[in-house]
Amino acid sequence: MDARALGIFDSGVGGLTVVRAVQDLLPHEAIVYLGDTARVPYGSKSPETIRRFAAEDVRFLVERGVKAVVVACNTATAHALPQLREEFGLPVIGVIEPGVDAALAHPDAQRIGVIATRGTIRSHAYQHALAQRRPGLVILDHATPLLVPLVEENWIEHPAADIILHTYLDPLIERGMDTLLLACTHYPLLMPKLRQLLGPEVRLVDSATTCAEHLRASLARLDILAEPSPASLEIHLTDLSEQFELLARRFLRNPPPRIHRAELAS
Amino acid sequence: MDARALGIFDSGVGGLTVVRAVQDLLPHEAIVYLGDTARVPYGSKSPETIRRFAAEDVRFLVERGVKAVVVACNTATAHALPQLREEFGLPVIGVIEPGVDAALAHPDAQRIGVIATRGTIRSHAYQHALAQRRPGLVILDHATPLLVPLVEENWIEHPAADIILHTYLDPLIERGMDTLLLACTHYPLLMPKLRQLLGPEVRLVDSATTCAEHLRASLARLDILAEPSPASLEIHLTDLSEQFELLARRFLRNPPPRIHRAELAS
Repeated sequence: MDARALGIFDSGVGGLTVVRAVQDLLPHEAIVYLGDTARVPYGSKSPETIRRFAAEDVRFLVERGVKAVVVACNTATAHALPQLREEFGLPVIGVIEPGVDAALAHPDAQRIGVIATRGTIRSHAYQHALAQRRPGLVILDHATPLLVPLVEENWIEHPAADIILHTYLDPLIERGMDTLLLACTHYPLLMPKLRQLLGPEVRLVDSATTCAEHLRASLARLDILAEPSPASLEIHLTDLSEQFELLARRFLRNPPPRIHRAELAS
Repeated sequence: MDARALGIFDSGVGGLTVVRAVQDLLPHEAIVYLGDTARVPYGSKSPETIRRFAAEDVRFLVERGVKAVVVACNTATAHALPQLREEFGLPVIGVIEPGVDAALAHPDAQRIGVIATRGTIRSHAYQHALAQRRPGLVILDHATPLLVPLVEENWIEHPAADIILHTYLDPLIERGMDTLLLACTHYPLLMPKLRQLLGPEVRLVDSATTCAEHLRASLARLDILAEPSPASLEIHLTDLSEQFELLARRFLRNPPPRIHRAELAS
């Protein structure tokens, strides 16, 4: 048992979908969240810059005494995970492996769709991880850049959402996709819409939920789960704006009353 | 007469719509374009960071011997224009004043719609400039964050474009908008679609064209227009990717055969 908080970071507010999934699955854990909103997005930065930013993010969390870190950012997971594990010597969990594991958990999974931002698709992180784990797998990857602004506009029930999702997904359905992996932390908010659109034939894998499940298993294995206790959530953002605060509150069920402005030591 | 090139910069490739408008209006001018694609977008950065980046961009162009600089970036225009004029001592033209001038050029303009990214709307740069120039004006401002990815996806003729544009613009039409100012360098690509949607009653002001007109007047006044000669265009981007190159070619009518990778001295 370990009462110290979990640290979770992302380049922006998208990682709060992971916070919400962790709150659902591990209701006794205290959480410190860091969103590097001053430098969002990481996807367009160079790998060296991403590794430097990710190390600064983890240092901020480690200084707050966390027992483990979740990298709730696809770009940082793709480029910085091994280095963060080596440098900080505490459990560091990314979003890619849990999603890939979950997508391959069903023995019939043969044709996996992967949707993400252009940066994540271009990094080939999911495609590599899937292909390494199950050679011969058909991977149907597709960049879906309109989905992040769609979620941020809260247009999930808007008629534009149906048209945009059909345009992106119909070609994958026609190519016989049996599983769809949501490889962006904004996309879990589209789950109800996607279930309705895809029907029961396509399995949906949401990286926020699978990441929380992976985290629970790791904490249990290391025997550092929190004891039953009232949980807490602290949110730090490197740049505060009305829009970021609005999104943060929408991405969470019970947002904290106050969001802190963080200064990172570089 | 002055055969030196014009320097034009933006945080990304959007400013190429300004390049195209300048090529149309000033066909003899040589142009050096810099897109700071490694650090795009500027809209979410702090004003001090934006001023530093803008100065680095102008220095890059000045080192290439340009005679004047166009800041084809709304964020950099809003935060860095006076400083750039002071620091570099050559003509520096932004995108905001020309658009505001053109929107107010018609004596009947009373209810001006302004659409832009969330960052530009939040900066209030256009709203301030309009209100200062004509007190009592009704300004109908609206952030339209889905339009940049829509243009970048090349979905201008896609059914989603109609729905998205109607959702954004119908409330402005209902409030009696007589002029619509496109305050983002990506939006000129939506002009034919917007003309069709808005009909002849609403005047459309495109900041790329108005910026090129303002530039021509400035060069003529200073007597530094180029002599009739074959024009040239050099494009430098601080980060090259397939996507940026694709967009660059789509935003221009006659793109150059080669796009250069630029290193900025900081």
